[in-house]
Amino acid sequence: MVSFRQVVKRLVLGPPVRSDRMRETLLPKRLALPVFASDPLSSVTYATQEILLILSLGGLAVLHLAPWVGLGVVLLLAVVVASYRQVVHAYPSGGGSYEVAARNLGRNASLVVAAALMVDYVMTVAVSVAAGVDNLVSAVPALYSSRVWLAVVLVLVLAALNLRGARESGRAFAVPTYLFVTAMGLTVLVGFVQTAAGHAPVAESAGWGIRPEQTDLTGIALVFLLLRAFASGCTALTGVEAISNGVPAFRRPRAHNAGRTMLIMGCLAIGLFSGVTALAVISGVRVAENPCDLIGFPGDCRNSGQRTVIAQLAAAVFGDGSVMFYVVQAGAALILVLAANTAFNGFPMLGSLLAQRRYLPRQLHTRGDRLAHSNGIIVLGAVSIALIASFGGSVTALIQLYIVGVFLSFTLCQVGMVRHWNHELRESDDPGRAHRARLINAVGAVLTATVLCVVLATKFTHGAYLVVLAIPLLFLLMRGIHRHYRQVRRELEPESGLLDSPSRVHAVVLVSTVHKPALRAMAFARATRPDTLTALTVEVDEADTHLLRSEWERLGIDFPLEVVESPYRDITRPIVGYIKELRRSRARDLVCVYIPDYVVGHWWEGLLHNQSALRLTWRLRFEPGVVVVSVPWQLDSSHRREVDRAHHPPGHVRRGIRPDFR
Amino acid sequence: MVSFRQVVKRLVLGPPVRSDRMRETLLPKRLALPVFASDPLSSVTYATQEILLILSLGGLAVLHLAPWVGLGVVLLLAVVVASYRQVVHAYPSGGGSYEVAARNLGRNASLVVAAALMVDYVMTVAVSVAAGVDNLVSAVPALYSSRVWLAVVLVLVLAALNLRGARESGRAFAVPTYLFVTAMGLTVLVGFVQTAAGHAPVAESAGWGIRPEQTDLTGIALVFLLLRAFASGCTALTGVEAISNGVPAFRRPRAHNAGRTMLIMGCLAIGLFSGVTALAVISGVRVAENPCDLIGFPGDCRNSGQRTVIAQLAAAVFGDGSVMFYVVQAGAALILVLAANTAFNGFPMLGSLLAQRRYLPRQLHTRGDRLAHSNGIIVLGAVSIALIASFGGSVTALIQLYIVGVFLSFTLCQVGMVRHWNHELRESDDPGRAHRARLINAVGAVLTATVLCVVLATKFTHGAYLVVLAIPLLFLLMRGIHRHYRQVRRELEPESGLLDSPSRVHAVVLVSTVHKPALRAMAFARATRPDTLTALTVEVDEADTHLLRSEWERLGIDFPLEVVESPYRDITRPIVGYIKELRRSRARDLVCVYIPDYVVGHWWEGLLHNQSALRLTWRLRFEPGVVVVSVPWQLDSSHRREVDRAHHPPGHVRRGIRPDFR
Repeated sequence: MVSFRQVVKRLVLGPPVRSDRMRETLLPKRLALPVFASDPLSSVTYATQEILLILSLGGLAVLHLAPWVGLGVVLLLAVVVASYRQVVHAYPSGGGSYEVAARNLGRNASLVVAAALMVDYVMTVAVSVAAGVDNLVSAVPALYSSRVWLAVVLVLVLAALNLRGARESGRAFAVPTYLFVTAMGLTVLVGFVQTAAGHAPVAESAGWGIRPEQTDLTGIALVFLLLRAFASGCTALTGVEAISNGVPAFRRPRAHNAGRTMLIMGCLAIGLFSGVTALAVISGVRVAENPCDLIGFPGDCRNSGQRTVIAQLAAAVFGDGSVMFYVVQAGAALILVLAANTAFNGFPMLGSLLAQRRYLPRQLHTRGDRLAHSNGIIVLGAVSIALIASFGGSVTALIQLYIVGVFLSFTLCQVGMVRHWNHELRESDDPGRAHRARLINAVGAVLTATVLCVVLATKFTHGAYLVVLAIPLLFLLMRGIHRHYRQVRRELEPESGLLDSPSRVHAVVLVSTVHKPALRAMAFARATRPDTLTALTVEVDEADTHLLRSEWERLGIDFPLEVVESPYRDITRPIVGYIKELRRSRARDLVCVYIPDYVVGHWWEGLLHNQSALRLTWRLRFEPGVVVVSVPWQLDSSHRREVDRAHHPPGHVRRGIRPDFR
Repeated sequence: MVSFRQVVKRLVLGPPVRSDRMRETLLPKRLALPVFASDPLSSVTYATQEILLILSLGGLAVLHLAPWVGLGVVLLLAVVVASYRQVVHAYPSGGGSYEVAARNLGRNASLVVAAALMVDYVMTVAVSVAAGVDNLVSAVPALYSSRVWLAVVLVLVLAALNLRGARESGRAFAVPTYLFVTAMGLTVLVGFVQTAAGHAPVAESAGWGIRPEQTDLTGIALVFLLLRAFASGCTALTGVEAISNGVPAFRRPRAHNAGRTMLIMGCLAIGLFSGVTALAVISGVRVAENPCDLIGFPGDCRNSGQRTVIAQLAAAVFGDGSVMFYVVQAGAALILVLAANTAFNGFPMLGSLLAQRRYLPRQLHTRGDRLAHSNGIIVLGAVSIALIASFGGSVTALIQLYIVGVFLSFTLCQVGMVRHWNHELRESDDPGRAHRARLINAVGAVLTATVLCVVLATKFTHGAYLVVLAIPLLFLLMRGIHRHYRQVRRELEPESGLLDSPSRVHAVVLVSTVHKPALRAMAFARATRPDTLTALTVEVDEADTHLLRSEWERLGIDFPLEVVESPYRDITRPIVGYIKELRRSRARDLVCVYIPDYVVGHWWEGLLHNQSALRLTWRLRFEPGVVVVSVPWQLDSSHRREVDRAHHPPGHVRRGIRPDFR
């Protein structure tokens, strides 16, 4: 079993990496861009679609307002990118929003940001993978019925790649990101050229009608619908902060490289998003959450889905089934999966930081065989698979949960930056730069706070309430964990040097029958030369005790044998009682309880022996001044393991050492 | 958590029983009859029905042969009861068929019987409970859709009752068994009186037609169908051997009382079975496995079931919805549940016997709080619930698996008895009695062997193959377990007195940071006055080691501190390597590894601390000459448990002792 597990682990992870090779996993810009910018760039594939989906609720009449909603999103995107460039320069340590909040707004604000970011990362994985699968299905409709499974498999593959280490993932991901940007850019360009030439592309859905949910919208209802559409469009902003959390993964000079990467990413995102939105309006794309609301939808609207906006555009521009159509879909699907990968970079890093500061369990800080924070990767993978499965892999349903966390951390981060610049201004001798930066961040703060309110107001009942519950829960959890660690630390802090040694040592050897493990335990106990030495047995059955006594005499064992009775056939209680009694009069003494222990080779062999030793060991831990010494007896069958280890010693396989090295 | 579990346990089980109250749980005849005879008596409720179901496959024309099939079953029943009375007298120790086979046919035959009996007990529970639920549904059709759940709940209730101990279950079960025998007897009598008076009862299904599966049966096909019907009717014999396995639960003189009980049971079973079969033929009952094959069945034949034969007879004799109809149905449902209870008596006893002889895991031999063999009861409950669930609670499907095991053990037992009497005849001075007994058993052996062949031939493809697989698997499992225990026993057998003490003791204290648990571990290690004493730390991060060293000096600790490096961040391997190295030159020495251990109060607190100590402890068990001493440090939060224990110390609650007694 063990060696099979080892083999699988090695196949998935590759050979382990030494701690001192840490520096080699840093990323140059051309690899950092695909790793960190895939998230915001990938939003292009669904942001336009989500705007159109919401506007459709008001019918065809409202659809013509799409460009204005898109414009709002573009402006916001520009401001947020500018704001985060300030963050990258001011805090190049990779703490991102979390660190900004921690330094400028105090502990509680930083924990709120941390909670929001954790939710955010999980949602990134869930939404991106689901959207990726949607684009895959747009190209290969036969996959429609297995889309949830596909998404789950993709998350597992991502987790495995990240457990192998950041650098390889960067390399594996560069090609597809560039492929998507090129293909999508080409689609937009060719579409525009066709429009300019007088034969604008026409989407397959251009002729369809829409059954509106609300009709004759006026006044407040119309404004509310526009705000909802805008809030949905804000998904285009998700992932903008990823670079600010990943600065330490950049090659030096880190802040400079990260800032440049951010700028390139911002321009690409704005260009692609506005291009796609414009082309969607030009070609007359129609979408609805439920395809049955589309008048003219071909086929069974209940057992198939509508093609994504991207797919419709590619088909309109290059022709359905053309090579470029498949290239665009492949690029979209791939970049979405890579966007999920951003979260697999960010979440473990944030988790490790929080664990180091004792807000999360320590295990999130340890690095695995390949230097990745394995536990964080595993947690992220598991939670996002659960989300995808429970929302049936629906992008539109998942997106409702996405944007609250994003804008909560945006807002707190920008507010923190404003305070940062206030502080700098008091001390700086170059107030011009700081003033400009403060203005950027202040505008960012006001805008993102407004959007946060809009998002909360328009999405709360559509699923966002789940996030509104999750963030405070995470917050309280982190505070609780911190309190626990602090308390333990305080409790364990030594006041002076070594504690006083106990004055006397009493050895108690537990015996049920006279067999070699018991004899070995007695021999070992005697070797430690304790002050008193007793063999103890529990009498469940008189005949057994009698047998034990006669064997004892036959073999001439010179140990005193004490018998405690157990009228209720329980083993633990009489022994604990005996030991409590022993310690009552000798509070400063040490009692060593020797328990003979069989070591077997197969797990099922363990089932054939009574488990009472385990229960007893566990119970004795609560007794002060008592230690349990388990004296193992290696049964022949345990040598099978020994042989296994000789071939593949677990430690050796871990580090790629050959058996003959031993 | 613990105290809640304790409360539930007490509610289900009642207060624990002292070992010396064992004798009080013996049964007088009037309680033993309902406990052990409920199984064969309850077969009356389905045996007739199963005969009719099979004959129906040949259409209405074949149905008139039912009385002849029934007669064959009655003859067989008489022979088997007579045979088993011999067993009860010859082997009153309660081993039943198993012991007969073991004494006369050798170990392998006895293990085959044991395997067959185990399967048999499981099937008794599954079939009886499923049939009980069928009768309940016949009275209350609304329960049809939840019948699987009902069956599962019934098994759980039975398991709970039996965990409380045999005597109480005997008492709780007496009334319903007598109720059923009386009610069923009355039904048959009144039915016969009505027939004699000229207005014979007419079943609700008397006018219905049947769509036959096979038509125009002649020659071999007809004989085969009759044999199938006979094999199904043999379910009437299931449970006949129960008394022979339960002899030790009878009051003294055991064999005499058990033999009398068997005779009463045999007469009742034969009387009721022939009565029900005759009445079913008289009143023209029609049944089919699938109600849709019945021409004239009212209602939706796919979402409801047909009423049982018993229910149809009671309705025909006393009138549908009459008080007596409900009394008969309640009696039938209850006795079937009690039949399942027979298995809950027999299985744990057989399991305990096999465990004592080391053919099954030891845990099956221990007696629980209430002196019942709790683990056997739990295993039986779990397996039968699994069976009921996977066969959707269908009696007809489950019965296919039932009879093979029963007749396999019947046959081997009777063959064993023949050899027993051969042996007796050579030594006895009353050859007349032994000759008579041998004749009875020989006839029994030949008949049951024939039936076994018929059952195998007619039922193999209908599900019996599962049992044909299960029995050899259980057989091999028991032999494997026996071999393991024997091997371990031989390996652990001491040749002489105490083993040699190791010549020197080396104490190694594992340290990661300087905190109180580490200091206590060092103090304890020093108290045992070892020959050498070292503190050992694993360097994963240079900075941490540096910090440790400076703390070490600051506090003036006079222990030598050794550092082993771990370039791959693994803890276990470097420590094991260090210890192997230490032992290499000193093979006869003892190494005591002291591991500081936090004791926390909540399970989730345990998650917040690294689990590496556990892994290391496990790994070190494989090293000869090394013992692990875990030195617990009780954190404040563990006192919460201490307080809990002060109120309800687990051991005290177990034995009903008040806290103030402490």
